[in-house]
Amino acid sequence: MSDFSIGVDLGGTNLRIAAVTVDGKLIEKVTLGTQVSLGRDHVLNEMCGAIRQLSEKYKGSGKMHGVGIGVPGIIHMATGRIYESPNLPGWADSPVRDEIEQRLGARVFLENDANAAALGEKWLGAGRDVPHLAMITLGTGVGGGLVLDGAVWHGMNGMAGELGHITVDPNGPLCGCGNYGCVEAISSATAIVRAAREAIAAGRAPGLERAAKSDPEFSSKSIYQLAIQGDEEAKRIYQRVGWALGILIAGLVNALNLNMYVIGGGVVSAWDAFSPSIFTELRERSLVYAATDPNPLPAGTAKGTSARVDRRTTEKTIVTRALLGSDAGLFGAARIPLVAAGA
Amino acid sequence: MSDFSIGVDLGGTNLRIAAVTVDGKLIEKVTLGTQVSLGRDHVLNEMCGAIRQLSEKYKGSGKMHGVGIGVPGIIHMATGRIYESPNLPGWADSPVRDEIEQRLGARVFLENDANAAALGEKWLGAGRDVPHLAMITLGTGVGGGLVLDGAVWHGMNGMAGELGHITVDPNGPLCGCGNYGCVEAISSATAIVRAAREAIAAGRAPGLERAAKSDPEFSSKSIYQLAIQGDEEAKRIYQRVGWALGILIAGLVNALNLNMYVIGGGVVSAWDAFSPSIFTELRERSLVYAATDPNPLPAGTAKGTSARVDRRTTEKTIVTRALLGSDAGLFGAARIPLVAAGA
Repeated sequence: MSDFSIGVDLGGTNLRIAAVTVDGKLIEKVTLGTQVSLGRDHVLNEMCGAIRQLSEKYKGSGKMHGVGIGVPGIIHMATGRIYESPNLPGWADSPVRDEIEQRLGARVFLENDANAAALGEKWLGAGRDVPHLAMITLGTGVGGGLVLDGAVWHGMNGMAGELGHITVDPNGPLCGCGNYGCVEAISSATAIVRAAREAIAAGRAPGLERAAKSDPEFSSKSIYQLAIQGDEEAKRIYQRVGWALGILIAGLVNALNLNMYVIGGGVVSAWDAFSPSIFTELRERSLVYAATDPNPLPAGTAKGTSARVDRRTTEKTIVTRALLGSDAGLFGAARIPLVAAGA
Repeated sequence: MSDFSIGVDLGGTNLRIAAVTVDGKLIEKVTLGTQVSLGRDHVLNEMCGAIRQLSEKYKGSGKMHGVGIGVPGIIHMATGRIYESPNLPGWADSPVRDEIEQRLGARVFLENDANAAALGEKWLGAGRDVPHLAMITLGTGVGGGLVLDGAVWHGMNGMAGELGHITVDPNGPLCGCGNYGCVEAISSATAIVRAAREAIAAGRAPGLERAAKSDPEFSSKSIYQLAIQGDEEAKRIYQRVGWALGILIAGLVNALNLNMYVIGGGVVSAWDAFSPSIFTELRERSLVYAATDPNPLPAGTAKGTSARVDRRTTEKTIVTRALLGSDAGLFGAARIPLVAAGA
């Protein structure tokens, strides 16, 4: 017998719904095709139906504390409306939270999907033992979430954590948001493929060109395969992914001095190819990282800020891979009603 | 009759000590030359002497709740040691807080001077009415401080708020910290003068050259005077100051979604010359700013992220000048023991 909540991950291609106990055990997970194209009402019907089924099925085992829904968009926290969601056309500006609450007769919490993933990694993943972390999710776009003192940091109105749209290269590539040089424009799966196609078009990437011609699903994963086989252009692209992430994280370390920076999302499978560049940038660009570096370079070999630091604190800044994979957001969403209920 | 505390601003050139009431009234302020060159013990003697005098003088009027000291360096919060302070040679790694506590028999709190200034502006200045703010202090260097939910954000071990060393131009000028392209390397008073001298050396700044030759104290203020008189190179230098600050603040807005970003320090007197560039960068580089812009550009004229936003929230992001001048740090330091005592 264990109390539980329902977590929902409302993705662009999948709708996943899980019952999760107060101590973080997955009871059951349901995956539906969302068919976003069939519209908001259709998706809400499917979602509420599945939530009701799970609630009914397990109501004998404990109290259901509410529903948390991770949404790919910016949430306006006070009103429970979706402010901006390119992947959910027609959802913005309608009172989604209140509508679902009325349908279900249960407490409902909306959360940005990357914030939910950050909370999931804090609760059950890489960040279990630390109070403060930032999560960066490398997928089609680059999402972000901050957890401070164990809770999602929402800022003034719920728009905090847009880490993917922080400028790291003021004259860098154009981003979908309209800005130049966002992390997302360099380190997302989309940006990786675009960089490869540009290198092919410029005639400087014969290996990538062969792969793109032979592979109908030419993707960031294909480019990673070439990188680990030694293709220079593929390696260079992933180094630039790490360079951008390193500048981003160096800024976060200097500003926030968190315990941990967790990197998740599909692109993280290429960790070997991009992570060395992250640490190079951190050591050159963050005095705070240099002072809290868990693996400092030997004296005389360090550059940048690391060369200036001769004392280190006992507290260490950890930059690491996410542990929960695509379930992080589901667990994080389920966590929100449990915390609200004090369960 | 009013309870009070003592705030101390331990600057590189002045030691200022003030008695401040629980409701933020300055009772008395003492300014001493610190003579840092005479060493740590000398400065501590002078400081403790002045604190004792003020405490004695006003002990009849209310309870003295403790002493807050703003220090130009990184404070290790758990131990009350100064971790790093280029302006206070010989102070690092000694148990400064505990030593002062023993001498005075009062509770003592050390705080980074820019964090103290942020708290001062929150308590009595520009940020009186908001829960969350960032403060950026433009002086010889660029300091920073974050106030979240009314309190200084320290992070894991007290090193948070190093906003001046965030990279805004990865291939920009070398900073004193060893990194390239920190805000401090572009927007500090030192960087402004360096940029002017480089323009003079390159032969592209006749106006600046005349000013530098005739003015033995050629400074960021002299360059501002030329900028408001229309000198192109002086204007360009201040535009770049605002450009760097705009990229910094755009990143902070995206990450933290705070209510307010306060700019203080001596360089802020040139606000007219650099602030327009801040708002240009914010509108181009932060979707969160664009959605919370208090003065949005008319549709059709906006670029970057502002051009993508067609809805705005009722909450607004404010970027503004500090109000308390050089007293911000003194008031903020005095605030810390009052909060700790629940006064």
